[in-house]
Amino acid sequence: MKEFDFIRSIQPDFYRQSSVVKGIGDDAAIVRHTNEDVITTVDTMVENVHFSSKTTEPFHIGYRALAANISDIAAMGGKPTSYVVSIVIPDSWSAADLQAIYHGMKELAKVFNMDLIGGDTVSGEQLVLSITVLGTVLKGKARYRSDAQEHDIIFVTGTLGDAACGLHLLLNATHKEQDNYRYFVKRHQMPMPRVSFINQCENITRMSLNDISDGIANEANEIAETSDKTLIIEYDKIPSHSRLADFSHEQQFKWSLTGGEDFELIGTVSEKDWELLKTIAKKTNTKISAIGTVRNDWNKNGTVWLQHNHQLKKLEKSGYTHLSR
Amino acid sequence: MKEFDFIRSIQPDFYRQSSVVKGIGDDAAIVRHTNEDVITTVDTMVENVHFSSKTTEPFHIGYRALAANISDIAAMGGKPTSYVVSIVIPDSWSAADLQAIYHGMKELAKVFNMDLIGGDTVSGEQLVLSITVLGTVLKGKARYRSDAQEHDIIFVTGTLGDAACGLHLLLNATHKEQDNYRYFVKRHQMPMPRVSFINQCENITRMSLNDISDGIANEANEIAETSDKTLIIEYDKIPSHSRLADFSHEQQFKWSLTGGEDFELIGTVSEKDWELLKTIAKKTNTKISAIGTVRNDWNKNGTVWLQHNHQLKKLEKSGYTHLSR
Repeated sequence: MKEFDFIRSIQPDFYRQSSVVKGIGDDAAIVRHTNEDVITTVDTMVENVHFSSKTTEPFHIGYRALAANISDIAAMGGKPTSYVVSIVIPDSWSAADLQAIYHGMKELAKVFNMDLIGGDTVSGEQLVLSITVLGTVLKGKARYRSDAQEHDIIFVTGTLGDAACGLHLLLNATHKEQDNYRYFVKRHQMPMPRVSFINQCENITRMSLNDISDGIANEANEIAETSDKTLIIEYDKIPSHSRLADFSHEQQFKWSLTGGEDFELIGTVSEKDWELLKTIAKKTNTKISAIGTVRNDWNKNGTVWLQHNHQLKKLEKSGYTHLSR
Repeated sequence: MKEFDFIRSIQPDFYRQSSVVKGIGDDAAIVRHTNEDVITTVDTMVENVHFSSKTTEPFHIGYRALAANISDIAAMGGKPTSYVVSIVIPDSWSAADLQAIYHGMKELAKVFNMDLIGGDTVSGEQLVLSITVLGTVLKGKARYRSDAQEHDIIFVTGTLGDAACGLHLLLNATHKEQDNYRYFVKRHQMPMPRVSFINQCENITRMSLNDISDGIANEANEIAETSDKTLIIEYDKIPSHSRLADFSHEQQFKWSLTGGEDFELIGTVSEKDWELLKTIAKKTNTKISAIGTVRNDWNKNGTVWLQHNHQLKKLEKSGYTHLSR
């Protein structure tokens, strides 16, 4: 398949969003968002760094790369609308595998009514997939990491550590037909960003928010740093899937604190908004859990503390815990 | 230098555009453009494919990659406002060279008052620089390739083939101190997209437009195809720098027709707007040249023809010319 034919084969037949003024086919794409702010994020995945073609099907490479970007849009409180794909293609990749990457993106894009509006296709030695996603949020209504306040309740969506467990199983499991194998592997291969939940949160006046792409230890620290507050998290309240109990305590601890790419959300809301948040979660069929509280402790602000086994230990971004000196 | 320190070192200290609601430092960037359409384009450059670190300084890698994107915004009639950088970094690259890439982008961004608002920094085997630029254009005022009409005058800005000649000199020249060496090499290393000229063209009601990134033969064909018209170009009217005459006729022919990355503009306007266009060009200190006309010839539409040595030959995208069968 020639380059030109390949590019034709990945082009959309129609655009779902009325905001697309000009899609693929000119020097650049044009979108119109009069009443909303425009959100932009880019995420790049490199073969043998972020994925291996041995454990990841081309379909899932595309799917996961787009999911990571959509999750960033969700973490701003926004709605994803369109995406632009830059791909570096080594000679060794077949046209069918490349089309499968685009098919993976397309499947997830369909869920959120998103359009592919542009891109660049070049050759190189190593597959690099770089996706830029555009999204929208009502003017001035974006959710920042830096908005945590004293007494806030810290919440997370879903269960944590699933994707890390799924990757472990992909690499090590011998019994691949079991239900829990399929569940965890699917959570790794086809994560579903929390767009519908967060888009229903309009009436929550203030919320700090971050998506869990590198593990809750990392993202909680980002909230603590940018908000200049102290986050106290209770380990026993961190939600995990019931079948995660099949694994060792060490694995559970590691996966739930540092397991990236669950693409769940972590945030904080005022105590008075907690009931409303639970109602929205129920309405959108989203599991949410309160896992701790925000304090304003001048000599601890900017850090995260983990309550575990009757001890309060400092939780580093890496997931490492230690008693304070 | 650690990754974190590197990322800090490339972050802007302030934002020039008031449209930047949120820059670097959260899950995504946010911009606000209420009265304008938002233009998006991405361009990816790969080491040893699009440039060689032997002939291109890191500063110029960054500069040229951003210039290519800005030129796409100009080719839509727009104004560039911000950019997002995804970079794949091999171990072999030093922090100083990487910073020089960002410095190159920053220098050009300054010219157009643009802000770096986000990005992704990952490791890999081969340097890949992928830039997404956002720009704006007044609602509904974008310029498309497909807007050429019968009797239009075909114009180009600047002189063509300079960048190709510059690359040739970089690879082959032995006398590097000559003025013409410096001129052509600079046109290759630091092309200046035609933003200020095109932004003054508001009163031209209709214009087809394309930027010359792959050579005029290619871009003229794109206008002919998308507009479904016939473009007749007179070879002798294609503007070239006087010192290009120092090279062989074959080189001149090749460079001016297929030399990419001059980042000049090719477009068409109605005969009645030609005088106005010349006035705008003069005001913005831009050389423009009329190089041919648009015809509506049903059995030739979608193609480009070159008048050269008293013969009319079909001009292919590749620059290849031949008499019609």
